[in-house]
Amino acid sequence: MKTVGYASYSPDTEMVPYHFERRALRANDVAIEILYSGVCHSDLHTVNGDWGPQPSPIVPGHEIVGRVIEVGPKVSNYKVGDQVGVGCMVDSCQECDQCHHGEEQFCRHGMTPTYGAPDRISGEITQGGYSKHIVVREEFVLRIPEALDLSRAAPILCAGITTFSPLRTWNIGEGSRVGVIGLGGLGHMAVQLAAAMGAEVTVLSRSKQKEEEAKKIGAKGILASTDEDAMNAAASSFDLIIDTVPVEHDVTLYTPLLDVDATLVIVGQVGPMKEFMTVPMIMGRRRVAGSLIGGVKQTQEVLDFCAEHNIHPICEIIRPEQINEAFEVMEKGDIAHRYVMKMTDMADDA
Amino acid sequence: MKTVGYASYSPDTEMVPYHFERRALRANDVAIEILYSGVCHSDLHTVNGDWGPQPSPIVPGHEIVGRVIEVGPKVSNYKVGDQVGVGCMVDSCQECDQCHHGEEQFCRHGMTPTYGAPDRISGEITQGGYSKHIVVREEFVLRIPEALDLSRAAPILCAGITTFSPLRTWNIGEGSRVGVIGLGGLGHMAVQLAAAMGAEVTVLSRSKQKEEEAKKIGAKGILASTDEDAMNAAASSFDLIIDTVPVEHDVTLYTPLLDVDATLVIVGQVGPMKEFMTVPMIMGRRRVAGSLIGGVKQTQEVLDFCAEHNIHPICEIIRPEQINEAFEVMEKGDIAHRYVMKMTDMADDA
Repeated sequence: MKTVGYASYSPDTEMVPYHFERRALRANDVAIEILYSGVCHSDLHTVNGDWGPQPSPIVPGHEIVGRVIEVGPKVSNYKVGDQVGVGCMVDSCQECDQCHHGEEQFCRHGMTPTYGAPDRISGEITQGGYSKHIVVREEFVLRIPEALDLSRAAPILCAGITTFSPLRTWNIGEGSRVGVIGLGGLGHMAVQLAAAMGAEVTVLSRSKQKEEEAKKIGAKGILASTDEDAMNAAASSFDLIIDTVPVEHDVTLYTPLLDVDATLVIVGQVGPMKEFMTVPMIMGRRRVAGSLIGGVKQTQEVLDFCAEHNIHPICEIIRPEQINEAFEVMEKGDIAHRYVMKMTDMADDA
Repeated sequence: MKTVGYASYSPDTEMVPYHFERRALRANDVAIEILYSGVCHSDLHTVNGDWGPQPSPIVPGHEIVGRVIEVGPKVSNYKVGDQVGVGCMVDSCQECDQCHHGEEQFCRHGMTPTYGAPDRISGEITQGGYSKHIVVREEFVLRIPEALDLSRAAPILCAGITTFSPLRTWNIGEGSRVGVIGLGGLGHMAVQLAAAMGAEVTVLSRSKQKEEEAKKIGAKGILASTDEDAMNAAASSFDLIIDTVPVEHDVTLYTPLLDVDATLVIVGQVGPMKEFMTVPMIMGRRRVAGSLIGGVKQTQEVLDFCAEHNIHPICEIIRPEQINEAFEVMEKGDIAHRYVMKMTDMADDA
């Protein structure tokens, strides 16, 4: 199947239109016309080469919402016309313990990311959602519930599951005390999801500048990390802190805020973290962990959860040709919303 | 009650004999003649001022084994002649949630350490086990099982509980895969305790030099952290790693060895740790935690466990006047045994 999208040829050049072929449908494949494609900070890291050299050309995008246009003969869960999504993974071994218990993101043989990695069968490089079509095996296709606004659902597939998964791992529920560091793409999903679970949510930020914004999406307020008295008063008062800060920083500012046995989970920074002090960790058996997206089943769960609780990422819809401008804005700092490209705005002969 | 012990007057001077008074017995107090007193690296850190300024004079020692010589009128669990022990704490509020569920080390109002902190009632500074007598409220007195060799039991009260507690917290049992970094005072207890719980224990060390020693106490062998191939082959193969290294280091060398959801628990280094990489933590939801000794109930449990499994710390019995020499040796590096002072060797008029 012919399609077109936006690709990066190198870290030094802009994203440009790219015409390419999607594979012919295998028996268990679903072909999707992509309607909306979220723009994630990892896309930017990838094309910038921050995470090492990448295949070229590469079509980023792993927050994909669309409509089924064709299915392989063995596909049983989807039919033409269904509203579907694709997240950060398009395949895994399906045979290891992690795949068996629904945590394909930790597949023992390595899951296949939605873009930039060899397909498990053909070896061709996977290409992502900054394009008009995609072909994905049905096990990695999600159903987008009717109650969700299609144009704002895409970021749930990455920012949503990335913050939902630790909330489930650490059993957040009614009355849990959750801190969220940063109010960007991940942070504003974390706040909404935790609040919908019944948690008391506090945003941790350098200042109280965004407090109204935080309250509007369900936080009880902001704890300013620069306010030493407030930080001391908040010692041992959180059951879980979700750390969405996407740059190197010192967790020691936050670990004393954790209650005994509580966890700070890093979901933002992929790379080095500063020197830290063990004392607050030892003195309260406190923990620092990482968390990576979530399995397919849990990704479906967060989509259904968002539909049930009317949770949507804050999205700004842009045209695909605005992708370079969007990247520029994202380079400059955290934005409290997600860019979503309306892929149907891209001409077939772009 | 008059007693004598060894005290430090300043970080720059040697330990010297010190004559002082133990408090008159309160209703729930137990007076103990100290027979053996373990020498812990924290004693050295304290007198060196590594953890900040300390009261002066200070009598260190929180691995105490002795015999009851007098009890207050309300003491119900101990009688004169009983073999008893005292560990790292001598009091806590007894009213908070942590005290209520037996984790006095995390008392919300701060537990009272065995030496160097104000007594909760009189305010006088607590003095530790490098002395011939101690007076402790019965709730913080442990029973030393008959099956334990008194002369080698003392280090169980700190090195033992410090490594036993995380093994329990992280549910180590039959078939668990446990790594122990370092084979010093803490490490050699961790190996024995984990092996007795049925775990497969691997010591992580720079070289395989101590492999025979490690095997002798129950390890299946040593994984040399300098052997890159062996380290790569051991990726994702541990359920728990107990990190006993007492100096600043980089956990990123070890986090990839943890299985999905597994934990590296820091019990050795109290202070800064080097910059670390989040990638292995994110990619396997791996965790880094701290752990602090254990509660009174669990300290009794480790004493009983050691008695049942015939586990003893490797001890070198010294005379109290050798304490300065012992400190000198400990300054130079990790020793795979614990110094234990035979306190009855100290003259009352020393």
